[in-house]
Amino acid sequence: MAHIHFRNLTSLRDALGLCREHLGGRRTEAERVALDRAAGRVLAARIVAAMPLPHFARSTMDGYAVRAADTFSASTSAPTMLRLAGQVRIGHAPDMMLQAGETADIPTGGMLPDGADAVVMLEHAEAMSGDMIQVFRPVAPGQHVQQVGEDIAQGAEALPAGTLLTGADVALLAALGVMDVEVHMRPRVAIVSTGDEIVPAEFTPGPAQMRDANAHGLAALCHRSGAEPVMLGIVEDEPEALGKTAEQALNDCDLLIVSGGSSAGARDMTLEALQNLCSPGVFVNGIALRPGKPTIIASCSGKLAFGLPGHPVSALVVFDRLVRPVLAWLMGAEMRENRISAHATRTVPSEAGLTEYVRVRLRHEEQQWLAEPLFGKSASISSLGTADGLLEIPAGVEGIDQGEPVDVILWS
Amino acid sequence: MAHIHFRNLTSLRDALGLCREHLGGRRTEAERVALDRAAGRVLAARIVAAMPLPHFARSTMDGYAVRAADTFSASTSAPTMLRLAGQVRIGHAPDMMLQAGETADIPTGGMLPDGADAVVMLEHAEAMSGDMIQVFRPVAPGQHVQQVGEDIAQGAEALPAGTLLTGADVALLAALGVMDVEVHMRPRVAIVSTGDEIVPAEFTPGPAQMRDANAHGLAALCHRSGAEPVMLGIVEDEPEALGKTAEQALNDCDLLIVSGGSSAGARDMTLEALQNLCSPGVFVNGIALRPGKPTIIASCSGKLAFGLPGHPVSALVVFDRLVRPVLAWLMGAEMRENRISAHATRTVPSEAGLTEYVRVRLRHEEQQWLAEPLFGKSASISSLGTADGLLEIPAGVEGIDQGEPVDVILWS
Repeated sequence: MAHIHFRNLTSLRDALGLCREHLGGRRTEAERVALDRAAGRVLAARIVAAMPLPHFARSTMDGYAVRAADTFSASTSAPTMLRLAGQVRIGHAPDMMLQAGETADIPTGGMLPDGADAVVMLEHAEAMSGDMIQVFRPVAPGQHVQQVGEDIAQGAEALPAGTLLTGADVALLAALGVMDVEVHMRPRVAIVSTGDEIVPAEFTPGPAQMRDANAHGLAALCHRSGAEPVMLGIVEDEPEALGKTAEQALNDCDLLIVSGGSSAGARDMTLEALQNLCSPGVFVNGIALRPGKPTIIASCSGKLAFGLPGHPVSALVVFDRLVRPVLAWLMGAEMRENRISAHATRTVPSEAGLTEYVRVRLRHEEQQWLAEPLFGKSASISSLGTADGLLEIPAGVEGIDQGEPVDVILWS
Repeated sequence: MAHIHFRNLTSLRDALGLCREHLGGRRTEAERVALDRAAGRVLAARIVAAMPLPHFARSTMDGYAVRAADTFSASTSAPTMLRLAGQVRIGHAPDMMLQAGETADIPTGGMLPDGADAVVMLEHAEAMSGDMIQVFRPVAPGQHVQQVGEDIAQGAEALPAGTLLTGADVALLAALGVMDVEVHMRPRVAIVSTGDEIVPAEFTPGPAQMRDANAHGLAALCHRSGAEPVMLGIVEDEPEALGKTAEQALNDCDLLIVSGGSSAGARDMTLEALQNLCSPGVFVNGIALRPGKPTIIASCSGKLAFGLPGHPVSALVVFDRLVRPVLAWLMGAEMRENRISAHATRTVPSEAGLTEYVRVRLRHEEQQWLAEPLFGKSASISSLGTADGLLEIPAGVEGIDQGEPVDVILWS
């Protein structure tokens, strides 16, 4: 059994750069989805406004529509008197034409009558007897009016391709009447488990066996990243068997994850299988990342295959730091980081040259977040449940002092 | 048309406190879901480990299983010689019983043979001819061994009720063989639009009409918050009609959102309808929040009804700040904030006494996030698409200076 020496670890940054390079701009195809299913998806084509927003001049205040010129001399001591010619009803095109010296009652969002070019706020006017309105302040042309196309001009780009659609974007699309959109298909991620000690999680493990935790955790993270996991079960620790499954997976899916067993033997087997199968082949064999050092990444005719460590903690950290951004790229987007700033409650040692992630619990105290490191053997799986996220120690830093500001990446 | 004066605005903090109080610990019922659908859901009952983890003593290293006492005198100059009695195969219970002076080859994750109580790392031993192994360093009993139940003891709580399940939690549950879990049902959120100028987004609006952007944006935010939107369409601006729809909605759903039209009239109508329908009734009428001042909140026999402002920007901000935490509480969880620390690129004025949210664009420069405020009329809907999130100006602060550190809440 060959033991692994990490003489030439790739930095996390370089590993990401190489992934991007080997991906070569590959994207999943586009599909059309209904607007109400589009949040969290990535636009495959830009959205252009088919009509201006708003498409009519609207009042932005409750008040009186006027010809601005009529109000130029208005003041509290010498108010201008205007004749109330009508009332604009919300949602209805006014059927009046405002003449000089006339005004119309108008609600917020009401359409300006022809002839009017400004709105006097309710607070700056007073209704008198006989349909007369006193105006106490002048208004400039266009004041309190949202002009046609002021928000979005007809033909303007409302959202660029590559937008990760939020609820706010969905509201904007609805305002434009865009009821379905072209988005990138969810990347299909093949998940294969190896390790002769691993049994399906549904089974009762024998005396020396462990349940397959990784496949389920990785599948959940795929879902949370907008991807579609394809769970291919457990393959025996034998390069030919793994090679066969991996080949099929890479034909059918956009990305392959092989989640290793605990032993160095399982890792060697993954390395051999990916090296045999893939062209140009393995381009990362060990990363300057803890946990996650034994990670393998191969490029297989433009598709990426990841060999993740067997420890669940390591596998999930590597997914978060490497696979998640790649999935975002496959959808034509940039990854949105889920990180918050916190202060370390304890000193955390770290080896310079490695990017290190320490599981932490977060608590909010006196307006700031405190990150409490959860130490423990890396084999511990219980710490997965209690941790809120990962404290990041950059590669150039030798440990974190108590109270030092740190970045924490939230689990998702 | 009564104009709204905000003499007695409720603070954002108080509004949240009152919501919690009126909710009175109400939770949605529990349902059972498959583990692979459980990420993002909230546990309704705690998970107890039915078996210990691990359930056998495992090696945490590739090396040699030994009786620790045999190695106590080992050193580089005077190595201990042990007889290789066998090889532990990963996933198989060893069929040997280690005698004094014996050792067994063992991979990481392998089960310790009877008689062994520690593991010597591969690096600290050397295989000699004739099945003899030289050990260069002593190991203590238990060294490089994960004991039965060391990770989680049988009967211990693995995850408490109220846990928002992450991918890491799913991995932990799979390790324990928990293949389905009791979670709180997704809260059903009734969404009603008002405003006589509003038409369904699918329609072409008439000369003075606007498409219903809010309902779709709010529905998307419901989905992203783990809730199930129930879209009830547009109700005419008439208290009795709204009252009837609201009553049905509150019977069927866990929470009601009435998204108002632009005008003060639409707001008055919502206020009247909720005041008539609900008991104990409206407990927030105006919030010290910008955008979002005109917000109404009513308690209807333990269910909450929100009257949101008509401007899409305001409606979405109020959802994020008030409705989202309430939905988390309904699922038995605390809301997880999605906020990052950034620095303002410009001075942002603000009125003391109001909690203010300014739409910002984020960019990363020299290891820090910069938040670029997007100014514009509050009626602007295009800024929804370009903003990455909301810069928060706390109520006690009069504006933010250029370069000052700020919290930004990310759109979801």
